[in-house]
Amino acid sequence: MICRSKHFWLIVKEKFNRAPSDFLLRSLSSTTRNIRENRLALDLVRQSSSCILWRNFATRTNWGVRKRTLFPKLFFIEDRPSMSAIEHEETLAPLRLAVQEQGNLVRKLKEEKADPVTIKAAVTELKARIKSLELKVLELEPKEEKFDRLKMEDLLKQKFFYDISFSIYGGVAGQYDFGPLGCAVKNNIIDEWRKFFVLEEGIFEVNTSCLTPEPVLQASGHMEKFADYMVKDLKNGECFRVDHLIQTSLEKFIVDSKDREAIAEASKLISQLDNMKKDDYQAIIDKYSFKSPLTGNDLSEPIEFNLMFSTNIGPAGLLRGFLRPETAQGIFVNFKRLLEFNGGKLPFAAAQIGKAFRNEISPRAGLIRVREFDLAEIEHFVDPDDKAHPKFDDVQQVELPLLSACNQMDGKSPVSIAVGEAVSKGLIANQTLGYFMTKTFLFLKHIGINMDKVRFRQHMSNEMAHYASDCWDAECKTSYGWVECVGHADRSAFDLTHHTNATNVKLVAEKKLASPKKVKVMECLPNKAKIGKAFKQDSKVIITHLAQIGEEEASALKEQLATGSSVTLSIDNKRVTLSAEMLTVKEYEKTVHVEEIIPSVIEPAFGIGRIMYSLFEHSFREREGDEQRTYLSLPPSVAPYKCSVLPLSGNTEFAPFTRTISSSLRQLGVSHKVDESSGSIGRRYARTDQIAIPLGVTIDFDTLKEPHSVTLRERDSLEQVRLPVDMVASVVNDVARGVITWEDVKQTYPKFEQQEATK
Amino acid sequence: MICRSKHFWLIVKEKFNRAPSDFLLRSLSSTTRNIRENRLALDLVRQSSSCILWRNFATRTNWGVRKRTLFPKLFFIEDRPSMSAIEHEETLAPLRLAVQEQGNLVRKLKEEKADPVTIKAAVTELKARIKSLELKVLELEPKEEKFDRLKMEDLLKQKFFYDISFSIYGGVAGQYDFGPLGCAVKNNIIDEWRKFFVLEEGIFEVNTSCLTPEPVLQASGHMEKFADYMVKDLKNGECFRVDHLIQTSLEKFIVDSKDREAIAEASKLISQLDNMKKDDYQAIIDKYSFKSPLTGNDLSEPIEFNLMFSTNIGPAGLLRGFLRPETAQGIFVNFKRLLEFNGGKLPFAAAQIGKAFRNEISPRAGLIRVREFDLAEIEHFVDPDDKAHPKFDDVQQVELPLLSACNQMDGKSPVSIAVGEAVSKGLIANQTLGYFMTKTFLFLKHIGINMDKVRFRQHMSNEMAHYASDCWDAECKTSYGWVECVGHADRSAFDLTHHTNATNVKLVAEKKLASPKKVKVMECLPNKAKIGKAFKQDSKVIITHLAQIGEEEASALKEQLATGSSVTLSIDNKRVTLSAEMLTVKEYEKTVHVEEIIPSVIEPAFGIGRIMYSLFEHSFREREGDEQRTYLSLPPSVAPYKCSVLPLSGNTEFAPFTRTISSSLRQLGVSHKVDESSGSIGRRYARTDQIAIPLGVTIDFDTLKEPHSVTLRERDSLEQVRLPVDMVASVVNDVARGVITWEDVKQTYPKFEQQEATK
Repeated sequence: MICRSKHFWLIVKEKFNRAPSDFLLRSLSSTTRNIRENRLALDLVRQSSSCILWRNFATRTNWGVRKRTLFPKLFFIEDRPSMSAIEHEETLAPLRLAVQEQGNLVRKLKEEKADPVTIKAAVTELKARIKSLELKVLELEPKEEKFDRLKMEDLLKQKFFYDISFSIYGGVAGQYDFGPLGCAVKNNIIDEWRKFFVLEEGIFEVNTSCLTPEPVLQASGHMEKFADYMVKDLKNGECFRVDHLIQTSLEKFIVDSKDREAIAEASKLISQLDNMKKDDYQAIIDKYSFKSPLTGNDLSEPIEFNLMFSTNIGPAGLLRGFLRPETAQGIFVNFKRLLEFNGGKLPFAAAQIGKAFRNEISPRAGLIRVREFDLAEIEHFVDPDDKAHPKFDDVQQVELPLLSACNQMDGKSPVSIAVGEAVSKGLIANQTLGYFMTKTFLFLKHIGINMDKVRFRQHMSNEMAHYASDCWDAECKTSYGWVECVGHADRSAFDLTHHTNATNVKLVAEKKLASPKKVKVMECLPNKAKIGKAFKQDSKVIITHLAQIGEEEASALKEQLATGSSVTLSIDNKRVTLSAEMLTVKEYEKTVHVEEIIPSVIEPAFGIGRIMYSLFEHSFREREGDEQRTYLSLPPSVAPYKCSVLPLSGNTEFAPFTRTISSSLRQLGVSHKVDESSGSIGRRYARTDQIAIPLGVTIDFDTLKEPHSVTLRERDSLEQVRLPVDMVASVVNDVARGVITWEDVKQTYPKFEQQEATK
Repeated sequence: MICRSKHFWLIVKEKFNRAPSDFLLRSLSSTTRNIRENRLALDLVRQSSSCILWRNFATRTNWGVRKRTLFPKLFFIEDRPSMSAIEHEETLAPLRLAVQEQGNLVRKLKEEKADPVTIKAAVTELKARIKSLELKVLELEPKEEKFDRLKMEDLLKQKFFYDISFSIYGGVAGQYDFGPLGCAVKNNIIDEWRKFFVLEEGIFEVNTSCLTPEPVLQASGHMEKFADYMVKDLKNGECFRVDHLIQTSLEKFIVDSKDREAIAEASKLISQLDNMKKDDYQAIIDKYSFKSPLTGNDLSEPIEFNLMFSTNIGPAGLLRGFLRPETAQGIFVNFKRLLEFNGGKLPFAAAQIGKAFRNEISPRAGLIRVREFDLAEIEHFVDPDDKAHPKFDDVQQVELPLLSACNQMDGKSPVSIAVGEAVSKGLIANQTLGYFMTKTFLFLKHIGINMDKVRFRQHMSNEMAHYASDCWDAECKTSYGWVECVGHADRSAFDLTHHTNATNVKLVAEKKLASPKKVKVMECLPNKAKIGKAFKQDSKVIITHLAQIGEEEASALKEQLATGSSVTLSIDNKRVTLSAEMLTVKEYEKTVHVEEIIPSVIEPAFGIGRIMYSLFEHSFREREGDEQRTYLSLPPSVAPYKCSVLPLSGNTEFAPFTRTISSSLRQLGVSHKVDESSGSIGRRYARTDQIAIPLGVTIDFDTLKEPHSVTLRERDSLEQVRLPVDMVASVVNDVARGVITWEDVKQTYPKFEQQEATK
């Protein structure tokens, strides 16, 4: 730590207001002279109950990851150039202030219950200011964070990680095919996810239909709400997503215009586009007379376009169906079966990994906005009055980078807070939501996401999906900006209630009452014989209907029967008249021990493609001093192949060793790539680095001598060790499964420098 | 073995004409007295070079599976009541003869090149006779083979292995949801498949789009050929698959009719339904005046109905797309990328596991005919002139139950033949096809399919899919009859050729010529400057077109230019006239070292749902003497949970052991189910048996004593051993992964008899 201005330390305090352990206080005091020289910093450390530890300090004291985990309360700023981020705060201060002022205005208007139009306008302005702030933050990113997306995409395409679908037919926008490497990475991420969630949490994995009949999506709200606005070219029918079209057109306007005021206004409109509705869009199109950017033709007014792919199920064309836009509904409609599978008890969770489909109007940004994608969703069903999680204690010390709705309104940055604290303060609504957010955080870390590029952003009240009552997105920073990768929504009772209403099948759980209670029951008792005689084949429907009549209606029927001699009911749109002989309404008291409750649903939903794309960006590297040597630094668990097997040359004596090693790897189920092609060993290493292979086994002339040995090379550090041929498969397997690390390997086997090319 | 009539032994010889090892000859002679009493049997054994070994014999000599594998040439008839199947041959003989006679007639007609109508009629009759034979064979099945499907379906539904989709909305025919157990079984089958094929064979797994644009399916032939016939109710538009409707209606006719001749005729028509075309169906409907079975309304004429689900990709509704009916096309359109991924070399194989969709007119038979299903397909690309497989030697001794097209025409049963022999005799077309058939056979065995209920049936020439040139189906016998579970098709160059024609992108590989050869080349050389000046923005298209002009056309252009001063081409439906200044046709000789070839494709395609359904039927059991105690005998690798953990009672001292064992299982990634509910241990065992859990760990009062131990119980044998608490997780893991068997466990740990309920 070094001396800084008072303003600097105030920002530190603001940004990282944390609680240090006494231990650290002592460490800092005794090892860092500068601290004692700066009273403000020392005060800060004294006041709080944990502390900030700069990366420089950690490096200097040589604390490894292991040692640091002993002190869970410490807060480390890692892999971040120590001071620049904080210096930038001085630049950002006025922008933050502007957001905060507007945030306060919105709060005030809401408190005063101002008219909705005024509030809406204030919120729109607030979001625009938040967006300006965010853009500035991204612009101030330190230079080494700049990243060459084209170069990465070239690599991914050339090695066929993934590429556009049907390209020999011209390609289809928003659809991608995963080649051998991309498919393996995806499978590995899914496998790790399954271990992390399904196995460890005892979640019930299910697999339900993609084709979904219309009534299901009517009930779930997707028929009505799952739409974007588009405009059509009035002559050729071409469609554009209206916000994209306006943005591009305004950007062009800004470039062409010389009027500074007009430019400022257009810029402001761009920042507000996300929050506009039909009329706002129309007003802009009218004002600027925007036409189709491709033909110059006039445009239709904005049309709501439902994003679901429709089809017909069955040959008659009578049952309209859609490809599911999320996998969640398949779980909700199976709620009863799953509850029964869990012995009727709450809480439990079900998960589904599978394809979902959205007919995006204009797909873009590579894997991020596509028409066909893999989701992994969990629906955790829980008593709405008790959202505690039994394993919450295990994780409550974990610190999450949280950007709350409130902090967004105040123009603040994400703050790292222990999840236990965040829940107890009410920042995160409940333990279950907090538990899953933490599991997500640890999962992203486990598969290799750069944790400095992750934040949890809470939705503000007017941006939530139609089904959600609270929502935190795990976002990953990419060259496209912050990308929502995992949504954590409290869907409350929304879905189960709507499916119950649509089907008359009660999707509820029974909860034991603290003490039994007496309730009044009104029951409609049919005289089956009389009804059967009078209504023949319709009688079954009538009797079923009578059994489902609620308290209130039964009470009304009782009154009617008391005054008249018959009642008339509407059953399946037919009017049915029942005489007093056919129907008795019985009233009695009953002792009940349970009540019916509609469970709340907490949903973590993982977009596998977006996570994978972020992972590619976060692990794309260039070798120092050689821009051409790019590689992907994926962790062994996720890498498509776990190791390469490389004979040093075409020497035929190497072949038996290559075969033996490959076969022992295969027996252990370790995916690997044998490269017996010619070319220098260096060039072949570079090729394996490009496809993210973490370990390389090389057979050289020393291998031929007894005891037979090979070299093992690690991709990121370029370090090599020498180990016996018959150990290599199990060592690679252990590293791939995360049982040991490369550090462990280095401590067990001797270091190796360089092969000789000939002997 | 027992003495039988001469006729019996002739049938034995006919059916099992096999080659015994000398060893077996000695074994039989010395252990089976009866053999010496029956000269014919002895002769049979002497004449051939391997042998039939009856199950009774195997049981008597106590040969375990291990010992038997020492003698791969032996042929065992297992799990089959020893003689009855052969006794039935006497009943079946006339039916077999009838098939054979008709088969010979078809052969003769084809040889004589008779007119197609006559051949078609003869083939239809042949198929009818084959079907009658097959029905008789199934009818004669010994009694213990009868299987209570309802009981099994009850179990699968009650435990939510799978069930109809959207049932709270009334359900959708042909769509199923897999609950936690069914999903786990499916995932396990897929995992084993991936190990067996992708990993062991070094196949490239890919993952491509489900939504497929129309032109792709136009080229693949699916737009035209992928259809079934249906009829519509002329009043309400309801649709029926015509063959199903006619069958049901004829069956009703047979029940109602008293005219024996009419009954016979109707029966015959039923057996011919599979092979009829539009006019045949119409004729039957007319003759019997069939109406809609639901309304009695008149029916439309049979309409071809394409089985693909259609939708629109993108908002404009201009790009028609379909849900893929198979995953194979996604591989073919990526052929160039995959070939490059393999360094440009043949052979290589790509695989895809994923959903496919078929809009069945009337789905039925549970999981067997559904609208949405999982496929695992392999496309192996190979030089059409060299379909040898490098690993064929490893499998050539494996015997496959083959029912060739030829044997079907002769009314014969499947014959077990070593795959090496089958390929060398030309019965199976090539090594690669034979290799994959064998891998399929071993895979089905590995996951627990009853190998006595598997056969490979070759398609007869008129039943192959539009793309196939040879096809062998691995069929599993179920209560629905023989069900196609894995197709093995030689798709030859069909798909690559059609996509090449449709896109002008050459889907070919380069093959090195034995010796370089000189070829004449005709090349159209554009004068780019002149063309550019004359055609402006169109010039690029023209130049590209010129580069693609073939030998013949170039030659014609050369002639035209020699005689006239210009040529006229049709490019993108526009006529373009080029002067002699703009275009020169150069003729020269070139030495080429490679030729372009269109690879052949060998495709094994696995229907995961059908395999899974067959597996359920094959593993459904009742405990001897207790019909109510049903269970599923799935092998550990496929079972949804690998073990249960059962404390003997609610005693609180058991709880820490339950937690420790569960946690150590979780650490090893072993799925398991803890059942701490009350209820006798016997009842809880029965529950775990029902959901196929192969091993049960029980914590009892002896567990509390040091050294702490538990019992481990095996589901099928009900045997138990006692082993230390800290060993149990790794033992279960080893059994689940197939590293050790239950036999090994029994040899290592002491037998255990029965828990005492209290202490």
